[in-house]
Amino acid sequence: MKKFKTGDIAGVGCLVDSCRTCGNCEERLEQFCENGAIFTYNSPDKHSGGMTFGGYSESIVVDEAFVLSIPKNLDLAATAPLLCAGITTYSPLRHHRVTKGQKVGVVGLGGLGHMGVKLAKALGAHVVVFTTSLNKVEDALRLGADEVVHSKDEAAMKKHLNSFHFILDTVAAKHDINAYLVLLRRDGNLTQVGVPSEALDLDVSSLIFGRRSLSGSLIGGLKETQEMLDFCGQHSITSDIEIIPIQKINEAYHRLVKGDVKYRFVIDMASLKKAQ
Amino acid sequence: MKKFKTGDIAGVGCLVDSCRTCGNCEERLEQFCENGAIFTYNSPDKHSGGMTFGGYSESIVVDEAFVLSIPKNLDLAATAPLLCAGITTYSPLRHHRVTKGQKVGVVGLGGLGHMGVKLAKALGAHVVVFTTSLNKVEDALRLGADEVVHSKDEAAMKKHLNSFHFILDTVAAKHDINAYLVLLRRDGNLTQVGVPSEALDLDVSSLIFGRRSLSGSLIGGLKETQEMLDFCGQHSITSDIEIIPIQKINEAYHRLVKGDVKYRFVIDMASLKKAQ
Repeated sequence: MKKFKTGDIAGVGCLVDSCRTCGNCEERLEQFCENGAIFTYNSPDKHSGGMTFGGYSESIVVDEAFVLSIPKNLDLAATAPLLCAGITTYSPLRHHRVTKGQKVGVVGLGGLGHMGVKLAKALGAHVVVFTTSLNKVEDALRLGADEVVHSKDEAAMKKHLNSFHFILDTVAAKHDINAYLVLLRRDGNLTQVGVPSEALDLDVSSLIFGRRSLSGSLIGGLKETQEMLDFCGQHSITSDIEIIPIQKINEAYHRLVKGDVKYRFVIDMASLKKAQ
Repeated sequence: MKKFKTGDIAGVGCLVDSCRTCGNCEERLEQFCENGAIFTYNSPDKHSGGMTFGGYSESIVVDEAFVLSIPKNLDLAATAPLLCAGITTYSPLRHHRVTKGQKVGVVGLGGLGHMGVKLAKALGAHVVVFTTSLNKVEDALRLGADEVVHSKDEAAMKKHLNSFHFILDTVAAKHDINAYLVLLRRDGNLTQVGVPSEALDLDVSSLIFGRRSLSGSLIGGLKETQEMLDFCGQHSITSDIEIIPIQKINEAYHRLVKGDVKYRFVIDMASLKKAQ
């Protein structure tokens, strides 16, 4: 072990292994490993021979190449979601070079969206949140948004035509993506990080006029995940969370389905002992 | 007049004017003029007060800023379509930096597609044509394609998964875009230059896995159109055409609708005199 010593605070995110030799792994984009990235959950585990079962446990054994250093100044429980929602939103913001002075949209204010707002703001962007829930306006502003637009308000949407450098779309349900594409300026990009289960209706003319583009993004590689954690350490960014004991997992699941969480549930693993 | 002298061969493409002062015009992307590009046809004509009526005439008056130099070595009739189909396909190939050694797909072998094949090949790419018309295989190879894939053949399509740097999609009808998106390698781009009248069904996961992107592109600015013409001059590239007299315009229209043209009709304007 070279990266860590006893007592260091270490974290494991969505990935625990990859082939480490393919082109994507060599570029430190292990999430796109050409031989199949090994996710922390539901992936074939070549060491145990079974499947990976996730991190809801008191301990986990992972090769140090897939272990991250956690900044000392951050609250640990609120840091946990950075390893998924944090990197999922940080990676596209960085890949599309979001920087100071740019206008950035965040569609949907859930677990991913609320991280997108904090990170885009810390990168220096003017952040506009799009939401269908008017009761989220206050929260969006508290999280750092400069503006909030009710996406069903056509007149409000029209004011933003051709103006965004980048839009992060976190909505994982079928929605009208064209309404956001036309808000991009020339060469602007909209990246989807939510995965709707149904196909979206794409009006190609929204892409052709303005030479706009639409992309996808999937978590991030280990190198970029460490960079994101260091960035969050420097900017004191964590996730807004609600801590639950493992005994309340079913209740939390039902609340999650209803969208009733601000903005991520975190399980207190000490509660596992109570259960035994 | 500075750019031309009497006797020079000059061409006019899809654009005859723009505001020339907005950000997009300043970047020589006049097709995206923020105050409205003036197209050669069906645009408000600020000089005549009416509308622009296109170039089917013996003469046309256009500001030299919107006039192009035609390379001396090219057949004039076969050069005419370069000013639309040529730049429409050249611009995205260049914008996405298609270069030697890359694998490039061209979807659809019509007026746009056949130019895409010639230009991508001249840029040094390994060109694969996707078509639903098996009778186009021979023609695709003649035009320079290295491979032709029947897009309804699932096994043939599967062989190309994750392998393309860039795909130029010229199909202007509803089609399964996801079948092509999954053929892109990591960070690959598919650009649509055809405008289907119906929305396309987009499976977002085809973009998320591989961080792929989907873009649109619209003709090109004047600077790039001149660059394309010079490139075609250097590589002796023109469009495959069928010349018709203006008297056969209705018949040509019906053949065009059926896709019965290889690959662009060009009207011989001398035939206008016969009509009078």
